[in-house]
Amino acid sequence: MSDPLRSALVSSRNPLNIGAAARAMSNFGFTDLRVVNPYDVAYREARSAVRSHYILEQSRQCSTVVEAIAGCTLVVGTTAVGNRDLHTPLYQLETGAELLREHLASSAKAALLFGSEKFGLSNDEMSHCHWLMRIPTRSEHGSMNLGQAVAICLYEMRRQAAAVNQPAFEKPPVASSEELERLTAVLMDLLVESGYAQERTLESTELKLRRLIRRINVASNDAEALLGMLRHVLWKMRQAR
Amino acid sequence: MSDPLRSALVSSRNPLNIGAAARAMSNFGFTDLRVVNPYDVAYREARSAVRSHYILEQSRQCSTVVEAIAGCTLVVGTTAVGNRDLHTPLYQLETGAELLREHLASSAKAALLFGSEKFGLSNDEMSHCHWLMRIPTRSEHGSMNLGQAVAICLYEMRRQAAAVNQPAFEKPPVASSEELERLTAVLMDLLVESGYAQERTLESTELKLRRLIRRINVASNDAEALLGMLRHVLWKMRQAR
Repeated sequence: MSDPLRSALVSSRNPLNIGAAARAMSNFGFTDLRVVNPYDVAYREARSAVRSHYILEQSRQCSTVVEAIAGCTLVVGTTAVGNRDLHTPLYQLETGAELLREHLASSAKAALLFGSEKFGLSNDEMSHCHWLMRIPTRSEHGSMNLGQAVAICLYEMRRQAAAVNQPAFEKPPVASSEELERLTAVLMDLLVESGYAQERTLESTELKLRRLIRRINVASNDAEALLGMLRHVLWKMRQAR
Repeated sequence: MSDPLRSALVSSRNPLNIGAAARAMSNFGFTDLRVVNPYDVAYREARSAVRSHYILEQSRQCSTVVEAIAGCTLVVGTTAVGNRDLHTPLYQLETGAELLREHLASSAKAALLFGSEKFGLSNDEMSHCHWLMRIPTRSEHGSMNLGQAVAICLYEMRRQAAAVNQPAFEKPPVASSEELERLTAVLMDLLVESGYAQERTLESTELKLRRLIRRINVASNDAEALLGMLRHVLWKMRQAR
């Protein structure tokens, strides 16, 4: 299988959660799903749902965790519990995802286990894990919705993988001093034309206006657009005189 | 309100998604939820659900985006679209969350907008946003489940919050959505009054203008000063008619 990271849902009860997990896998480009000992109706419902994915269709139902993690050299469990007596190392998601990625980089296979909606992973299920990781939720409300937990874990894997992360948006060049001065000038003309700027305070008004325009952060093309608008307004005012 | 980051769900159709969004907010310690123009049955169902949260109970239903972003000095939209012709800056979630955190650090209020399950945010809804951010999903399957998208965005906010750094320079408060909208309105009136905006392109001109004003970075007091000036110009123009 080409996907080195397998997701395994253990004892899921809700078909919507199974479907949501599959959708998040597709969103982030993961394909290998195993569903361990699910509530049968839930699994069937999820698979027959209209929006059911190729991921669900090629997912495999297993009766035990052992079967679900077959072929994996690293097994990682997820838990909402922050500080109970754990016999297994527990990492925050960010650290855990980093360790997982290091493991996967050596073309080894790993499994990520998610427990049931109600109880999480049992002690027995956890005992198959090399270590555990935890999404940094509030201690007062640690337990996450299963579909959301899967989505966040896979997002974190992808976030870190995007080493060559080009910004999606190239900031446009900011307005030049000349453009800002033209903007100041046309606004000043408008203020004089409308009587807002009085003769005796002309100089201080212009100074304030110039400072204000420099404080504003405006792109070059936006400054040109504003200039065009304000010049039209000024032209109209002068015409109406 | 104590929670500086507001989440706003626009035109949500599915009560489970509204409920899932509220649950993720609770998981990551956010409380301020607004639900804009929801499918009424969905909102009622979500609120009456057994596992409905205090967040849903104190959430507020709004009929417009303007109402939902009231009091916010930064409005950020979420989109699944990676590379269409966008008029608004688009950042990857990681970068966007960083910018959001910087904004919130100055005790300003921000809103995070999520569009409908089917269509995302409309162009009109997006025009209220200062910028957009995108979860780095696969281009072949970009559209995420609403509840999962909310969970991932809030997770990313919390992940980064671990390394909080105070800005050395105290920036003045930036203009609120209301101030920006007033600025848009008075400029629009000037364009109509002067004949710059033609009847048949009125709507698209307003959309362009609103986007332009959101791209500009202007402090609250400067926005008020500009408003005063432009209103005077408008008053003068109307007097001269």
